[in-house]
Amino acid sequence: MREVVLSFGYQEYDGPILESFDLYKAKSGEEIVQRQLYDFTDKGDRHVAIRPEMTPTLARMVAGQVRNLAKPIRWFSIPNLWRYEQPGKGRLREHWQLNVDLFGVASYRAEVEILLIADSILKRFGAPDGSYQIKVSHRGILDSFLGKSLSLPKEKSQAVSKLLDKKAKISREAFEEEIRPLLNDPDKQLPLIYSYLESTIDSLENFDGIDVEALGFARKLFYDLKVLGIEKQITFDPSIIRGFDYYTGCIFEVFDTNPENRRSLYGGGRYDNLIGLFSNDQLTGIGFGLGDVTFRSFLEGHNLVPNLNRNDTVFIPVMEELLFPEVLKLADLLRKEGIKVETMLEAGKVGKQIQTAEKKGYRYVIFLGESEIAKKEVQLKDLQSGEQHIIPRNNLPSKLKDSLLG
Amino acid sequence: MREVVLSFGYQEYDGPILESFDLYKAKSGEEIVQRQLYDFTDKGDRHVAIRPEMTPTLARMVAGQVRNLAKPIRWFSIPNLWRYEQPGKGRLREHWQLNVDLFGVASYRAEVEILLIADSILKRFGAPDGSYQIKVSHRGILDSFLGKSLSLPKEKSQAVSKLLDKKAKISREAFEEEIRPLLNDPDKQLPLIYSYLESTIDSLENFDGIDVEALGFARKLFYDLKVLGIEKQITFDPSIIRGFDYYTGCIFEVFDTNPENRRSLYGGGRYDNLIGLFSNDQLTGIGFGLGDVTFRSFLEGHNLVPNLNRNDTVFIPVMEELLFPEVLKLADLLRKEGIKVETMLEAGKVGKQIQTAEKKGYRYVIFLGESEIAKKEVQLKDLQSGEQHIIPRNNLPSKLKDSLLG
Repeated sequence: MREVVLSFGYQEYDGPILESFDLYKAKSGEEIVQRQLYDFTDKGDRHVAIRPEMTPTLARMVAGQVRNLAKPIRWFSIPNLWRYEQPGKGRLREHWQLNVDLFGVASYRAEVEILLIADSILKRFGAPDGSYQIKVSHRGILDSFLGKSLSLPKEKSQAVSKLLDKKAKISREAFEEEIRPLLNDPDKQLPLIYSYLESTIDSLENFDGIDVEALGFARKLFYDLKVLGIEKQITFDPSIIRGFDYYTGCIFEVFDTNPENRRSLYGGGRYDNLIGLFSNDQLTGIGFGLGDVTFRSFLEGHNLVPNLNRNDTVFIPVMEELLFPEVLKLADLLRKEGIKVETMLEAGKVGKQIQTAEKKGYRYVIFLGESEIAKKEVQLKDLQSGEQHIIPRNNLPSKLKDSLLG
Repeated sequence: MREVVLSFGYQEYDGPILESFDLYKAKSGEEIVQRQLYDFTDKGDRHVAIRPEMTPTLARMVAGQVRNLAKPIRWFSIPNLWRYEQPGKGRLREHWQLNVDLFGVASYRAEVEILLIADSILKRFGAPDGSYQIKVSHRGILDSFLGKSLSLPKEKSQAVSKLLDKKAKISREAFEEEIRPLLNDPDKQLPLIYSYLESTIDSLENFDGIDVEALGFARKLFYDLKVLGIEKQITFDPSIIRGFDYYTGCIFEVFDTNPENRRSLYGGGRYDNLIGLFSNDQLTGIGFGLGDVTFRSFLEGHNLVPNLNRNDTVFIPVMEELLFPEVLKLADLLRKEGIKVETMLEAGKVGKQIQTAEKKGYRYVIFLGESEIAKKEVQLKDLQSGEQHIIPRNNLPSKLKDSLLG
């Protein structure tokens, strides 16, 4: 994840794990503040809390530097976050979350980049086409549909929006039963809602009062995604709602297509007033958060968990005490060439030392005996294939670089 | 730091930032537990604390897996730690600390490796010869000197040892005034103490009852340091004490030689019973901890703070809206070649975009205009030298790799 985000020129930031309780009281949802915070009073009588999310810290930090920072501001972080929740599937009390944010770009190209990053991360883990789907919508489209096409007042708009968000999780009957009392003319409006949820950017134009500016924004966005060749994985879907109040423009969610884990993996969107609590400056932004626990379920479901064997490091056993200075010197030389080397520190039998190498997850082992030292060569064994070759010392660094990286 | 430790085959671990209060009550010093802990009762009525040091977590984790882990166990971590201290020079409430530990090797070669790592980290930051000094001693030597050469009983040994530790910070008069009441025959013993503090490994042999096994251990250690060519930076010095009770063998401390900052930068040593609280297994170990705050003072004092300019990333301005898809495609291509690229997302004047690149700390900028696109080339500008060259698109990835890494 870090490699992908760095490749887009993002800079890594971090904040303290302890923040003032008031920061979360002002910025976080009620459930977090009331029930999930690890908060306490410190020895200096300050009411503090361990961070349950990174966004309030980000808003505070960006607001403090907004006039000094060159735009666009591209920041990311991979903080650990704590919530007092019931641990279970997809949920732990401590989890890690990639946060990617881009500030200061009003154009749809900010969306292009953020969606490209969201997609590139999945590809970097080897996720094949069809294993995930990124769905994009726009708050302007939803709001104009609810407020103008359906003529709903604000409170009812919000209630309907919340229902649309949970529609996929309840039966059609339950959905209709809950939504009917919120509509003026359900028999006429319900078919409109179903039609809305299945619309394309083009067919949305037919709805009365729909936000044509937002539609135009989405159209330009999808044009560029096509230029980049990623229009298949990323589709427009007006049924995407996202619960948070602070989104003001494009919103998106990444879904696992595995039928046993059909859930939202991560998502984000545009917010135009994130720093408003801390600054009078206006600063538009767009970002997303990606939690490690749900992401790991995705990787496991598609058999994509990275191989954590240490194939990037070479292991050198020590067969005889007397050879130890030579092993030391060889290891030192290889490290100076940028090669990672673990050596044994006590002499022992070959078989046992190979067992150690295997248990530690190594693939390549270097044997250095008296005859090899005399001939200025080593034996390089590949534990995976069982092959063993004699390598002249001079060629060893380049040979190892090929093997360990290749 | 991470690069150096990984090059020795160490594996990175982490633990939770919250641990049971009892863990620190059992393992940490009284000052930490009584006055410096960020402790509180969580929503499940557990008395917990934010970690003030990593060693108790390490001991708990290693003890839990000691029978499954292949020896030697080489682990490192760079945790953030919290102590409620008065912030000041070299002291912050949150700091980061590299912890490097090697378990399961009784031989002096564990000391060789740990000292080599401690030295390599300084070299990796460019610390020149003479900017630091690593001083090594052995608890066995100190204990035998106090207990046998001076015939002090245990309590007095400890008190004298504490005084020796603070000797450098107080006047000779104050030192003697404090130490005299602890000795049976000060007039005879004080000269012995001064002589001890200035001894070499060889001259220590002349003290009655000195631990010759420990002396032999130190001798073998320094022989190998000589083989590695690092005997200059690392010297034997029996005046090194280190306050912690849990050290049982070699101990060392790294000193800044800058006369304005003559302090201990970091240190460590061998402990034979770290996991004793959690396991009946015996496991010898050696390790050290390196805090970021004091280390930064060292780097600043010797003008070694790394250049944080982003010379590893290339910046692409966008001169005209219409060229944006071409910029996108070029950036995508370069990223696939492993090159980090930040692009502008809104068109603007050249001068202003170069200002942005400079403010963001970039050195290399790529210009892509209509004529360059037609000719399949780009302009590569080095903001540092002011030079600008035309590069064919095909050569760009390799040219950039040379520039960004070189």
